[in-house]
Amino acid sequence: MILADLGAEVVKVEQPEIGDRSRSSGPFIDGESTYFMSVNRGKLGFSVDLSKPKGKDLFLQLVDNSDVILENFAPGTMQRLGLDYHVLRDRNPAIIYAAISGFGQDGPYSSKPALDVVVQGMGGILSITGEPGGPPIRPGVSQGDITAGLFAVIGILSALQERTRSGLGQMVDIGMLDCQVTIQENAFARYFATGEVPTPLGTRHPVTAPFQVFQTSDGYITIALIEGRKERWPLLCSAIDRIDLIDDPRFDTGWTRSQNHHELEPILLGGPDEEDLPGMAGGAGGAGDRVRAGQHHRQGAQDPQVNHRGMIKEYNHSRLGKVRAVNTPVKLSRTPTGNDSSSPDLGEHTDDLLRDLLGMQEQEIASLREEEVI
Amino acid sequence: MILADLGAEVVKVEQPEIGDRSRSSGPFIDGESTYFMSVNRGKLGFSVDLSKPKGKDLFLQLVDNSDVILENFAPGTMQRLGLDYHVLRDRNPAIIYAAISGFGQDGPYSSKPALDVVVQGMGGILSITGEPGGPPIRPGVSQGDITAGLFAVIGILSALQERTRSGLGQMVDIGMLDCQVTIQENAFARYFATGEVPTPLGTRHPVTAPFQVFQTSDGYITIALIEGRKERWPLLCSAIDRIDLIDDPRFDTGWTRSQNHHELEPILLGGPDEEDLPGMAGGAGGAGDRVRAGQHHRQGAQDPQVNHRGMIKEYNHSRLGKVRAVNTPVKLSRTPTGNDSSSPDLGEHTDDLLRDLLGMQEQEIASLREEEVI
Repeated sequence: MILADLGAEVVKVEQPEIGDRSRSSGPFIDGESTYFMSVNRGKLGFSVDLSKPKGKDLFLQLVDNSDVILENFAPGTMQRLGLDYHVLRDRNPAIIYAAISGFGQDGPYSSKPALDVVVQGMGGILSITGEPGGPPIRPGVSQGDITAGLFAVIGILSALQERTRSGLGQMVDIGMLDCQVTIQENAFARYFATGEVPTPLGTRHPVTAPFQVFQTSDGYITIALIEGRKERWPLLCSAIDRIDLIDDPRFDTGWTRSQNHHELEPILLGGPDEEDLPGMAGGAGGAGDRVRAGQHHRQGAQDPQVNHRGMIKEYNHSRLGKVRAVNTPVKLSRTPTGNDSSSPDLGEHTDDLLRDLLGMQEQEIASLREEEVI
Repeated sequence: MILADLGAEVVKVEQPEIGDRSRSSGPFIDGESTYFMSVNRGKLGFSVDLSKPKGKDLFLQLVDNSDVILENFAPGTMQRLGLDYHVLRDRNPAIIYAAISGFGQDGPYSSKPALDVVVQGMGGILSITGEPGGPPIRPGVSQGDITAGLFAVIGILSALQERTRSGLGQMVDIGMLDCQVTIQENAFARYFATGEVPTPLGTRHPVTAPFQVFQTSDGYITIALIEGRKERWPLLCSAIDRIDLIDDPRFDTGWTRSQNHHELEPILLGGPDEEDLPGMAGGAGGAGDRVRAGQHHRQGAQDPQVNHRGMIKEYNHSRLGKVRAVNTPVKLSRTPTGNDSSSPDLGEHTDDLLRDLLGMQEQEIASLREEEVI
């Protein structure tokens, strides 16, 4: 979907009749899966039965005409279909073959099944998300899936870049667990430095303070002061009328404030000015704002900045007409990003692609349909 | 850092004497910030005072010799320095100028200060992370920062790809809030479909079940069954010896199981086989495993799969010697990724770069140092 937003022609290959299993994932709008729509916009729908020899041949003809293949089967599946990287490379040495799997294509866990929450649990992020001493909490988005998708795009684009020099494709092997380790760079760095295993901290930052959510009488706010230049803390002390704290050794640096957050929190909170704290943090060179809890996605969809940036837009769906969804955050100054199409129906563009990309005649297409290849 | 892992020569430009403020962020190893090390490995250190005319000139000479500039100042800062995109483009029309900011370069919030937790609070992920009915929880990694970094890399690599045809650079404008909206594609899709505002769900998935963490007598486990093909649920029913539930309309689909999770959870848990549930989920075409809570980063660093994939490796630091840190998850089959260098000392490579990249003589370098330009 990200590559389609960046201008690629993306063909979603699905099994005839059955399709991507996320098509049956609710909630639905007039029978259409919102889950499927939310991650498949801007793609062309192509249905082909890869278990049939003629289906394999159609797929290989697509490969001849493509720059990139992306699959997220369990390792070994494409080999069983006779369509693994080596087969595809023999057809088209410039092909970039990207595979996303739970644990990567090799190693002792490579054949283990994996899904988002499982990898988040094994990868450790569930062990550092939650209240101190409390049970694991899953971040509110499927970041196990999303992070792997983002790194897959990065791998594909870097292989395309390399190909401009070598003329050759290669395999991009993305493991979800690897990505979980990577985005915990800071948690591992702290563990390697101190030997202390990171634990959940509610909303606090592990190495600096204040950098967290506070509950006020009117809702939740964030306050964040960044690290380092000492003058930021004195400015905040001045704003809350506590210049006596400027030289307090408990609060000398972001790290010491973080270690002494239990003493810091009641100092910041509970005064008559607590609702103004975000502005004070901003004035002190930090940042702060209200937390949109409870009503977020309603407010977020109406937010003036979100709308100014075009982050919510209408897409055309062949059956539903206009549907609202989020947009790409990649804004380029000279080449447009994003597109106007929602997700495709199962096989919606099969005939177009066979005709226009592979140069087939109508009669041949009809015969493939009769044989249930497409 | 990701671009350095992919083989780019990355020069970190810092203010002499002061440097990146994260250099003072604890915890420390022999005075070195582990925070700084964890996000700056593989870069060359270059110190220059951009407020001095000769410093600006050195920076512009770097621009002449670079493909990409990346900055994360508040919008307007580079303009005040006289080094905004238009100035750089006039020097080098092929330059790709990437800017990461809280809200993007334009719009009503563009001048508001922003830091990770603030944008996570405004963006809504804090409103869907936590226990049902409970206060906001911050995901255990700085995903507000990390997601923006990943999309910035995607924007840069796509602009490089476009440049192979046009020969021209462009500006890549990444807003952290935009990225927060983007990764909540599913939460917004559900809200647009149902009008119901998403709320925190503990560890549950919003649209399917079982897909969550369970506490057993022996710790925490994950169980995940994916959506769609009905045969997976019957297999799990059979594994837990409850084939009477196969046709139970409460549990007919992932969506209905998700709606009836309160009734589903006690059925799965509490039996003599609860420790075997992850394996049963795997056998039913889903997935499951233990959650590494409490001891995660110690176990994770020793995990056979994590080590097989080379995800923890030693890097060379000029003062500390070997330091352990995480590796890139982007594994390419033909071109190596990752590198062996830890983060640079402040200005560690200034002389080398002036000499080798800009062709300066030792005497000129000495004079720049005397004038405190470098």
